[in-house]
Amino acid sequence: MSAIKEYIESNLPGVESCLSETVAGLNPLVKPVAAHILEAGGKRLRPMLCLLTARALGHEGKDIYPLAAALELIHSATLLHDDVLDRAEMRRGRTTAHIVFGVNETILAGDALLAIANKTVTEYESLPLMRCISQAIYWTAVGEIQEIQQLKEPSLTVEKYTEIVVGKTGYLLQTCCQSGAIIAGSPQEQVEAARTFGLNLGIAFQLVDDALDYSVSPLSTGKPRGGDLREGKLTLPLILFLQGMNNEARDALLKKIKCQSLDPFEQQWVLEEMEQQGLSRKTREESNVYLQLARESLGRFPETRERDLLYGVLEYIKDRED
Amino acid sequence: MSAIKEYIESNLPGVESCLSETVAGLNPLVKPVAAHILEAGGKRLRPMLCLLTARALGHEGKDIYPLAAALELIHSATLLHDDVLDRAEMRRGRTTAHIVFGVNETILAGDALLAIANKTVTEYESLPLMRCISQAIYWTAVGEIQEIQQLKEPSLTVEKYTEIVVGKTGYLLQTCCQSGAIIAGSPQEQVEAARTFGLNLGIAFQLVDDALDYSVSPLSTGKPRGGDLREGKLTLPLILFLQGMNNEARDALLKKIKCQSLDPFEQQWVLEEMEQQGLSRKTREESNVYLQLARESLGRFPETRERDLLYGVLEYIKDRED
Repeated sequence: MSAIKEYIESNLPGVESCLSETVAGLNPLVKPVAAHILEAGGKRLRPMLCLLTARALGHEGKDIYPLAAALELIHSATLLHDDVLDRAEMRRGRTTAHIVFGVNETILAGDALLAIANKTVTEYESLPLMRCISQAIYWTAVGEIQEIQQLKEPSLTVEKYTEIVVGKTGYLLQTCCQSGAIIAGSPQEQVEAARTFGLNLGIAFQLVDDALDYSVSPLSTGKPRGGDLREGKLTLPLILFLQGMNNEARDALLKKIKCQSLDPFEQQWVLEEMEQQGLSRKTREESNVYLQLARESLGRFPETRERDLLYGVLEYIKDRED
Repeated sequence: MSAIKEYIESNLPGVESCLSETVAGLNPLVKPVAAHILEAGGKRLRPMLCLLTARALGHEGKDIYPLAAALELIHSATLLHDDVLDRAEMRRGRTTAHIVFGVNETILAGDALLAIANKTVTEYESLPLMRCISQAIYWTAVGEIQEIQQLKEPSLTVEKYTEIVVGKTGYLLQTCCQSGAIIAGSPQEQVEAARTFGLNLGIAFQLVDDALDYSVSPLSTGKPRGGDLREGKLTLPLILFLQGMNNEARDALLKKIKCQSLDPFEQQWVLEEMEQQGLSRKTREESNVYLQLARESLGRFPETRERDLLYGVLEYIKDRED
């Protein structure tokens, strides 16, 4: 990871200054909301993927920073709206924005960040880039809707789960890599390689995230363990668990999960059963399938330092423990 | 009005079928929300302004309908989010979407409609059009924020009020006319005329709307009279009333308006005082200034049937009673 860290440290200031400029230009009503989410120290995975892909495909120069920052704005807007919709109380170890600043302010801040991201991308005067970003915004909205609907009408198929993962994370990470390739002026074949790389990396990233929710202590993620279970989110580890139960027990448990009415003892029982069955590990095994697909796409990139770093990102996701 | 009505009736089906197609393609979670707002029978002012401007500037053909429909989608998305933010209970004579279908569903439907509008416009493969629409989405978000902030920290200046009106209504109506001129391939000078026409028409339209809130019966608008007063919205009629009070009385009343704590007797008193001072009429006089500016911009359009109809729209706004 140290090579990636070094690369990020030398390139992050360009992205961060675009983000700070965006926050500084906001109306006082939403400025603190945007600052709260943007300064909470996310991984900046999205800007970095855009940057690394563009550089790996021959792009030079600083004009990529606003695009990379716009991708982080889209991500942050989604987080703000998601936390309102989920009534989530914690994010990245901090109280969520809607609790600190109010629901209205948070919805509006999300709308503003999305609009700014969209406007920023227009300034590149590139139709393929605009199309790529507007589709990302569209699919991200669809993904949020699918996830909320899954809470209301749970589906226990892995296919439905994967569809939600693509909408929630895959599509935006795909867009980061695809837009990086577009700004680099790459031929269609490489844009396509970047697209499939980002999509598969995104699915793997989310699978690992969902696996971690059932495996680590609150100290390392800032989120309490089993949060997805309490919030009634049917992620892969829980789907695998439910699939292994008999019909009657499954229906009873599913009903309680859906209504978020599991008591602490029941929660503890589910978590322990899942740990015994190694479902977090099985989810990570599934993520390895997507990491391998991402690796194969990278094989179609020219050999550069940045391609090696992108291989490193896949290793980082594979080994991620928090 | 009958010439306008006739024109609308022959062109509306093209727009309506685009809107129906959009609704049909939505996820079941948000489909009823979109149908609720789109089928409530708005005036379709935005699509019609886009269409009339484009036709007045020489555009022919049906490829304008998706653009015209996209403008209605942006407007509808704004209404959905606004009603959540305002906790409004009625819209166009019907219970608001967030009360019928839930807050989450309504926020998500708004996000989806905005994303679809944006994506639709990308398909025209025109950078000036994309820029125009992405700026409209941006300024509409800013306008919503300014309006909510005005509730929190009321300003009694006409300048601030006008700024909010531009953000809330003016900018999108400007975009309708500007995008119509762009799709018609008009020279810069005519695009500019279309832009100022739309902006001034938009400001006048909102001023008349704000005047009507203090002048008509619930039967004709579907909204209770004095709704803005109850919701604590500082529109021009109320600003003029407050400006005419002595400092002490004004501060006391403003405080109650801000907290939405006026009792029915106080509300009645304010409404009657305002009626006596003719503040609704004064607001309409103010709107005439903007209607005149819009009229002057139209003078730069070539003489066509559609230009006459646009003059007719200005007359309709001037005489509007519901």
